[in-house]
Amino acid sequence: MLCVGLDPDLARFPETLQGGVKDIEAFCKQIIDATGDLVCAFKPQIAYFSACGAETQLENICAYIRDKFPDVVLILDAKRGDIGDTAKLYAREAFVRYGADAVTVNPFLGTDSLEPFLATRDKGTIVLCRTSNAGSSEFQSLQVDGEPLYLRIARTAADEWRKIGDCALVVGATYPNELAQVRAIVSDMPILVPGIGAQGGDVTTVIRAGRDENNRGLIINSSRAILYADKSKSFADSARKVAIETRDAINSARFTG
Amino acid sequence: MLCVGLDPDLARFPETLQGGVKDIEAFCKQIIDATGDLVCAFKPQIAYFSACGAETQLENICAYIRDKFPDVVLILDAKRGDIGDTAKLYAREAFVRYGADAVTVNPFLGTDSLEPFLATRDKGTIVLCRTSNAGSSEFQSLQVDGEPLYLRIARTAADEWRKIGDCALVVGATYPNELAQVRAIVSDMPILVPGIGAQGGDVTTVIRAGRDENNRGLIINSSRAILYADKSKSFADSARKVAIETRDAINSARFTG
Repeated sequence: MLCVGLDPDLARFPETLQGGVKDIEAFCKQIIDATGDLVCAFKPQIAYFSACGAETQLENICAYIRDKFPDVVLILDAKRGDIGDTAKLYAREAFVRYGADAVTVNPFLGTDSLEPFLATRDKGTIVLCRTSNAGSSEFQSLQVDGEPLYLRIARTAADEWRKIGDCALVVGATYPNELAQVRAIVSDMPILVPGIGAQGGDVTTVIRAGRDENNRGLIINSSRAILYADKSKSFADSARKVAIETRDAINSARFTG
Repeated sequence: MLCVGLDPDLARFPETLQGGVKDIEAFCKQIIDATGDLVCAFKPQIAYFSACGAETQLENICAYIRDKFPDVVLILDAKRGDIGDTAKLYAREAFVRYGADAVTVNPFLGTDSLEPFLATRDKGTIVLCRTSNAGSSEFQSLQVDGEPLYLRIARTAADEWRKIGDCALVVGATYPNELAQVRAIVSDMPILVPGIGAQGGDVTTVIRAGRDENNRGLIINSSRAILYADKSKSFADSARKVAIETRDAINSARFTG
């Protein structure tokens, strides 16, 4: 269930990779090599690349993941949300340009804005439901027709979006009660759970709240705790060590909990 | 009040610019030259560039606008929405990399996700409120505490976001009644109005519903009707002609209506 988030932050790079933007690719590839046998998914966060003009490096990193670990799901974390023709272009960016298997999207504009993603065959659309940030309740938990908006979104995903294509949801590890509520609505739909590690979510709590009836259905993301475990030249070994610990914590909660 | 949206769609390019991605820059620069004296803003839609790897061309187009028309507001239409550090990176993408004066953002993640944009000095944050697409009512019009979500967003913008930084809203020309409701809440806050022209919104109706008490406060966007007025080599002249007609229609409704 472990997903490693690729958030290449130059300011936190190891001492041996202080060459600036050009080292993003080398850093990510070493993390991928060190953890690819431990994960179900990699999740590059596109903002880290677009802020510094590293689109070509993101293309190369995505190609590397597909080539070296073809069974690992490649999730582009882009949180796109736009209308009609523009949504089609964002779907092309994620699925064609970067060759992602799945992309995160924002539901605020409604079902018609999600259709170009959902309607793409053999690709996954991962819709924000209850995000991990402190302020996510401000709009996502507003009561609508007797339930919070995030449950309305979960219900729409289960009732409608799943019929159009492969759909999953995002629920933050920082909100385990909400995660359990969402799981009760979406049966075996996959849920991407960011927010363990640096953001403070607890693995065991997440597993118990979020797994489906078959003890499956979660993609648990960790980024910074793994990527920046160590600033020395052995950063990849340290990343692997933390990834193993995280995977073992997940499996312990999953199979002995 | 006229804004020209730069949505470079290769399939609709003039016959003289059929060289593919490399012609995006030439096309947009000719549109900019032909309309820059008629507009208050240019609004490049980033998806058209990111779908085909034309980030460098977008950088060049943004620099060209700043250089040739320094008084025209450069709005990056990106509809970004993410948390904490990631939001900071998206703010850097818009304001530093592309040098935009303002960027469109999605409020679904809450005020903390907007702060990195709002807190950037001398830059504008344009928050989605009621989008122009057919399905925008699905979530945006849900009743929360006795009013639709889009009015809750307008109220939060007027009461809170405006205190943090320069804030504007997006309301589609296709929903003039909702535009009037939003205007009643936000007093003189600028409102970006997409959806005239190809999407069917009416200029006179928009002006009457959306202007503030000083007959100002609207940025009315047209993209396709101007960009693709003509497929011949005189496309820029035709674009100018339609832009003049649109500006005149705006000013007629504004000053004689």
